[in-house]
Amino acid sequence: MKQSKWIWYPGDFELYHSMLLHNRRRVLGVYNNLNSDKGTEIASTYYYPMWRVDGPRRNCTLYKKAKIEKAETVELISNTDTATLWINGKYHKTGVKVELLPGEYEIKLKGFKDGGFPCFYVKGETFASDETWRVLDFDKKDMSAGCNNAYNNPDDNPEIFNFSYKRMDPVSKISTQGGVLYDFGRETFGKLVLKNVNPEIKELLISLGETEEEATDIYETTLVLNATLENGEFTGESSALRYAYIPSFDGNAELYLDYEYLDIKDTAEFKCDIPLINKIWDTCVYTLHLNMREGFFDGIKRDRWVWSGDAYQSYFVNYYLTKDTDTVRRTIRMLRGTNPMTTHINTITDYTFYWICSIWDYYFFTGDKQFVTDMYPDMLSTLEFIEGRLADDGMYTTRNGDWVFIDWSTFDKKEGPICAEQMLLCHAYTAMAKCASLLSDEKTANHCNDKANYMRSKINELYWDEEKGAFVDDYTSGRRNVTRHANIFALLFDLTSKERQESIIKNVIYNKDITPITTPYFEFYELDAMCKIGDFKYVTDMLHSYWGGMINLGATTIWEEFDPTMNGTEHYAMYGEKYGKSLCHAWGASPIYLLGKYALGVRPTSVGYATFDICPDLMCFKYFEGKVPVLDGEVSVKMDKSSVTVCSSKDGGTLVINGKNYKITKNIPLTVSIK
Amino acid sequence: MKQSKWIWYPGDFELYHSMLLHNRRRVLGVYNNLNSDKGTEIASTYYYPMWRVDGPRRNCTLYKKAKIEKAETVELISNTDTATLWINGKYHKTGVKVELLPGEYEIKLKGFKDGGFPCFYVKGETFASDETWRVLDFDKKDMSAGCNNAYNNPDDNPEIFNFSYKRMDPVSKISTQGGVLYDFGRETFGKLVLKNVNPEIKELLISLGETEEEATDIYETTLVLNATLENGEFTGESSALRYAYIPSFDGNAELYLDYEYLDIKDTAEFKCDIPLINKIWDTCVYTLHLNMREGFFDGIKRDRWVWSGDAYQSYFVNYYLTKDTDTVRRTIRMLRGTNPMTTHINTITDYTFYWICSIWDYYFFTGDKQFVTDMYPDMLSTLEFIEGRLADDGMYTTRNGDWVFIDWSTFDKKEGPICAEQMLLCHAYTAMAKCASLLSDEKTANHCNDKANYMRSKINELYWDEEKGAFVDDYTSGRRNVTRHANIFALLFDLTSKERQESIIKNVIYNKDITPITTPYFEFYELDAMCKIGDFKYVTDMLHSYWGGMINLGATTIWEEFDPTMNGTEHYAMYGEKYGKSLCHAWGASPIYLLGKYALGVRPTSVGYATFDICPDLMCFKYFEGKVPVLDGEVSVKMDKSSVTVCSSKDGGTLVINGKNYKITKNIPLTVSIK
Repeated sequence: MKQSKWIWYPGDFELYHSMLLHNRRRVLGVYNNLNSDKGTEIASTYYYPMWRVDGPRRNCTLYKKAKIEKAETVELISNTDTATLWINGKYHKTGVKVELLPGEYEIKLKGFKDGGFPCFYVKGETFASDETWRVLDFDKKDMSAGCNNAYNNPDDNPEIFNFSYKRMDPVSKISTQGGVLYDFGRETFGKLVLKNVNPEIKELLISLGETEEEATDIYETTLVLNATLENGEFTGESSALRYAYIPSFDGNAELYLDYEYLDIKDTAEFKCDIPLINKIWDTCVYTLHLNMREGFFDGIKRDRWVWSGDAYQSYFVNYYLTKDTDTVRRTIRMLRGTNPMTTHINTITDYTFYWICSIWDYYFFTGDKQFVTDMYPDMLSTLEFIEGRLADDGMYTTRNGDWVFIDWSTFDKKEGPICAEQMLLCHAYTAMAKCASLLSDEKTANHCNDKANYMRSKINELYWDEEKGAFVDDYTSGRRNVTRHANIFALLFDLTSKERQESIIKNVIYNKDITPITTPYFEFYELDAMCKIGDFKYVTDMLHSYWGGMINLGATTIWEEFDPTMNGTEHYAMYGEKYGKSLCHAWGASPIYLLGKYALGVRPTSVGYATFDICPDLMCFKYFEGKVPVLDGEVSVKMDKSSVTVCSSKDGGTLVINGKNYKITKNIPLTVSIK
Repeated sequence: MKQSKWIWYPGDFELYHSMLLHNRRRVLGVYNNLNSDKGTEIASTYYYPMWRVDGPRRNCTLYKKAKIEKAETVELISNTDTATLWINGKYHKTGVKVELLPGEYEIKLKGFKDGGFPCFYVKGETFASDETWRVLDFDKKDMSAGCNNAYNNPDDNPEIFNFSYKRMDPVSKISTQGGVLYDFGRETFGKLVLKNVNPEIKELLISLGETEEEATDIYETTLVLNATLENGEFTGESSALRYAYIPSFDGNAELYLDYEYLDIKDTAEFKCDIPLINKIWDTCVYTLHLNMREGFFDGIKRDRWVWSGDAYQSYFVNYYLTKDTDTVRRTIRMLRGTNPMTTHINTITDYTFYWICSIWDYYFFTGDKQFVTDMYPDMLSTLEFIEGRLADDGMYTTRNGDWVFIDWSTFDKKEGPICAEQMLLCHAYTAMAKCASLLSDEKTANHCNDKANYMRSKINELYWDEEKGAFVDDYTSGRRNVTRHANIFALLFDLTSKERQESIIKNVIYNKDITPITTPYFEFYELDAMCKIGDFKYVTDMLHSYWGGMINLGATTIWEEFDPTMNGTEHYAMYGEKYGKSLCHAWGASPIYLLGKYALGVRPTSVGYATFDICPDLMCFKYFEGKVPVLDGEVSVKMDKSSVTVCSSKDGGTLVINGKNYKITKNIPLTVSIK
C-alpha cells in the first residue's frame, strides 16, 4: 500500500508547536510577600511571550478528487473524534474501511479540535493522504495540505514534537552548602529524572544552572524544578542546565537526564592544526544543535523563543553544517504567524526585513520553489504591512510599537530613522523582488526593484557623510554619529559605490576609534564583511580572542555576549539579572559558516548549488581538512601550504585557486599544487 | 469584599462558545459500503460549518494600575496553571495570597491555555477583577477586559455555558414497528437520559425526531444517539426532539430529558379573544426561547448555527419579548469572528449588511453606547472589507464566494447585482453613519452618509421601472422581473419618494400576480411593511392562515417554511432530505414583534426608550391585553372596542389614540375612551 502521511491545514503544525514553545519560558517566582526580599516559596512561574502568539486552526477541511480504475479501500485515522470521511456526499466515521469501486470520487476530510490541532491520516492507494491533498479555505487560495516527513505512521502524533532522547548521567556529584550538586560536564538540555530518593521524600526543589554559581544560588537562579514525586519518581519539564542542585538535602538519589535533541546528522567537518580552533568548531556545532529544536531558538536557558534575527543567522550556519532544511522552513512559518499582521515580527522592524530576506536565501540554497510559492501570500501581506507604515517619502520611519533593534549598541534611534534599518529594508526589497520574479509576479517584482533602487539612492544621498567618509546613523540630529553597523551592511549588501566602500573600509572598519562590535550577533555580519573584503587575519584573530576567550574560561557552549575585561560571575549577568546571560546562544555559532564559506571556501554561485565555487584559503592555518554540504551532496577540502585537494559528490563545482578555475568532476578528487 | 468577576480577552467568551456550537451539528452517517443504500451501522457524524469558525486567543494579558491608601490582599484564581499574578515586576502563582501595603501598583494577569480559553478571577478590593481591568494587546487599542454577569463566582467556569436544566418526562410511550417510541408532547431540547434498561444491554441506538415519522425512520432521520451505557446509564449530547425511538427493542427503560434552557423571563404578554392567536403567541414565544441559547440560533434540530439574517429578526422579537440584551451582544460578537475578515458573515453578503444595521438597532433599543464603542473597530474593518469588494461605481457587485441570499426565492441573481442587495447596503451605510456620528468619528459619518445618499439616488435611477411602477430585480438583463423583496425594503427603509411608495403599494404589494412571499423569514419584512402602511388586515389574515395553518397541523413550534398546499410528510422535507426541514425555526417568531409593535403599539421614538409612543390598534380583535418591555421598564396595554388603558413603569411614554397624544405618567394607569 502507498505510504500515507499525516496531513493538516498548511502551517498549523508549525503554529501549534510555536504556540507551545513560546509559552514554555519560566522564571523564578519566589515571593509570597511583596515586602520581603526573600520569600517563603521558590517556584518556576510562567513568563509571557513578548509578542502575539498565534494558534493553529480549530477546523480543517482537506479534499482530493480522482478517478480510479481499480477498486481500493480507504480508511480515515484522526486525532479528533469529530473527524469525518466524506465521500461523494456520504459521511463515514474514522476507523471504517470503505471500499471504493472504480469510478470518480471526491473525498473530503473534515474535523474540529480545540486543544491541539486536527490531523488526518488516510490509508489508501490513490487516496493515501499526502501533500497531493488540498485545503478548502475561506482565507487563501487553494493550497497543498501540510505534512512533515517525521509523521508518516498511523500511530504518530503530530501534536508531539518528534525529539530523540538519550540517557545522560552526571559526571560528578558533590555535597555543598548543605545540598547536593550534580554536574553533567557540559551545557545540556532535557528532562531531569529523579528516582530512588533516600530518605524517602515527597517534594523537593531542584535548582538548575548553566554554572555552579547559578545552580547553588537558589534565590537568584533562573530556573528551578518543583519536584513532586509520584511512586518515588519525578520527571521534569525539558530545561537547559549543566548543573542541578538539590538544596537542604544530604541523602541519596538517582538523578539523570533524558537528553532531548533532534537527530540531525552533521555533514560539515573541520579539523586544523590549531587545537583551540578545533575546539571552537566543536563548541559551535554543539551550540547550534542545542538550539535547533522545533525551530531555531535564541538560547536554551532563558527565552527559548524563536527570534527572527537570531534565526536568520542560524539558517546560514545550518546551510554550512547539515542537510536539514525542514528546521529552516518550520522556523520561517513560526515567525510569520497568522494574519492580520499587526506588529513587526517579534515586534522588531529589522526582524521582519530579515524574514523576507530569509525566504530568498532559503530558495538560493535549496532550490525549493514550492516553499516560496507556499509562503508568497504571507510575503505579500508582510510587504503590505511594511509599506503601510513607511514615511511619506517611502523610507522607513519608526511607528508606535516598532522596536528598532539592529544590535545591542547605542544608536541615535530616537533622533530619526537610522541608516542600518533603511539598508535592511532596501535589502528586503531586493529579496522580495527576486521571489516575485521567480513566481512571475512581475508587477510586484518591478515595484520592489524600483523601491530598492530608490532607497539605495536615498540612503546614499541622505546618510553619507563626505567628511567622515562613512554612513552616519541619522541625518536629522546633526550628530553625525558613525557606528559600524550601517557601514558593514553597505559592504555586505553592496549598497554603495566601490569608492565609498573603500572609504568605509579605511574610515570605519580599520578605524579603532569607531566603537567595536560586542555581540557575537553582529560579529556575524562584521566577520562576513571582513571575509568578503579578504581580511582573514581579522577573522582568525577574533576566533582566537573572542571565541577562544570563552573557551579558555571553560565555556562548553557559546555565550550570548562576551566581554574579555570582565571577571568571574560578572560574565553571567545580563538584563539586570545576576544570571541573566544565556551561556548557550545560537548566534555564537557563526564560525561554522565562516570557516565553511571562506576557509573551506564552498559557495553556491547559482540556485540550489547547480553551480558552486570552492575557493579555499589557508588563512592562519598550516593545514586543514573538512567538508561542507552542498544541498544533496557534499564537498571535501583538504589543504596545506603546498596543495589543496577537493572532492565533490555533486556536479557543478569549480575549484578556484591560484587565480585559476578547475572544473570538478563528481566523485573524482582533484589536487592542485599551490604556487 | 468587593464582588469580583471572571475576566478574559474581550470577545473570547463569545468566540469560544461560538466555536463549540458551530461544531456541534451532526448528521446521519450510515454507510459502511458506498455501493449499498442501507449500511450496517447507523451513527451521527460530524457536519462541518460552512464558514470559517474562529477560536479565542490562547494567550492573554490583562492589567490594572492603581494607588491604594489601605492595605489589601489579592489572590489570583484561574482556569490555567500558567496563570501568573505579576505585581510591580514580581511573579506569583495562583492561590497565593499577596498582601499589598498602601502604595502604587501595576498588576498584570498573564496566562496561556490551549483548549478552552484563559480566564482570570482576582479576589481583592481595588484589584477585584472586573471590566475596569484592561487588556494588553498587539492588535487593537487598549480595551476593557471581557466579562459576563453569569460568571461572578470563583467556582464558575466560563468555558461551560450557563444553561439551566429541568427534568422532563415523556408524556407517552408506545411500542411500534418492533421498537419503543417516547413522545415528550412537544418540540423540546436537551440531554436524553437513559437508565434501568431491562433486559440489560450495553449499546443501543436512539433515533430522534421532531415528528413520529422522522424518529421511527431510522435510515432517514436527521439525528441518532449511539448510546453506550456506563454503569447502566447514558446521557446524550444536547439535541432537539419531540420523539425518541429505540428500534428493535421490546424491553423496559427509564428515559427522560434534561431540558436545557436559558433562564430568561418574558416581560411581554398578549391575550386576546381569539384562541388561535393566543396559541400562536405562545408557540412563537416557545420557539424563540428554544432558539435563544449561546446566541440566537436559526433552528435547534439541524444547523444549530448562528446566521446573521435569522439572528437579526430574533433581536427585534427579543426586544419585544424580554429585557435580556446579553444574548444580542453575544450573537453580534459571534457573528463577526476575528480579523482578517475574508468572507461575508456566514458567507452571505446581506448578512454582513444586517450585522452593521444590528449594532445601530441595538443601540437604539438599549442606549448602550459602550457596546458600540467596543464593536466599532470591527465595524470599521467590516466596512473596509465591504468597500474593498464594491464595483467601480461604488455599488455592490457579486464577487467570487459571495452568497447573495435575500430569501429562498428566485431572483435574477446571476444577471447582475439585484436591487434588494443594493438597498440593504444603502441601509447599512445609514446605520454605520449613525454609529460613527455617535462616537464622533465625523469623517466616517460623512463618508457613509454620502455613500447612502449616492446609493439611494443610483437605486432610484437604475432599478426603478416607470412602466411597472416598481423596482425591478436587475437593470442589466432587460427582463424587468419584479419581486416583492426590493419593493418591501423600499417601503421599510424609506428608500424612495412618497409617490413611488404609493405606486409600489398598488403595483406590487396588492398585486396578486407578483409571486407571494413563502418563508416566515421574509414575511417578517413584508408584514412589518404592511403594518407600516397600516394594513393590519393583511397581517391578521396571515396570522390565521399561515401561522394558524401550522398550529392547526399540530405544530408545537414554528416551522422553517410552510406551504398550505402540501400534505402529510411532504411538510417535513427540505433541501432534498426527507426530514430536512426544521420544525422549530426562530424566524417564525415574528408575531411577537408585530403584535407588540402594532397591536399593543409600543415603539421607541428616541434612543433607549427615553421617549416612546403607544399607538394601540385593535386590529381584528374584540379585545386584547398585554405587556411590552421598554428597556428597564414595561408598558401594559388593555384595549377593547370602547376604551384603551395603558400603564408604564417608565417615564417618557405617550399614548397616541384618536388622533391625539396623551402624556403618560409613570405607574399611573391612563384610560381613554375610543370614539
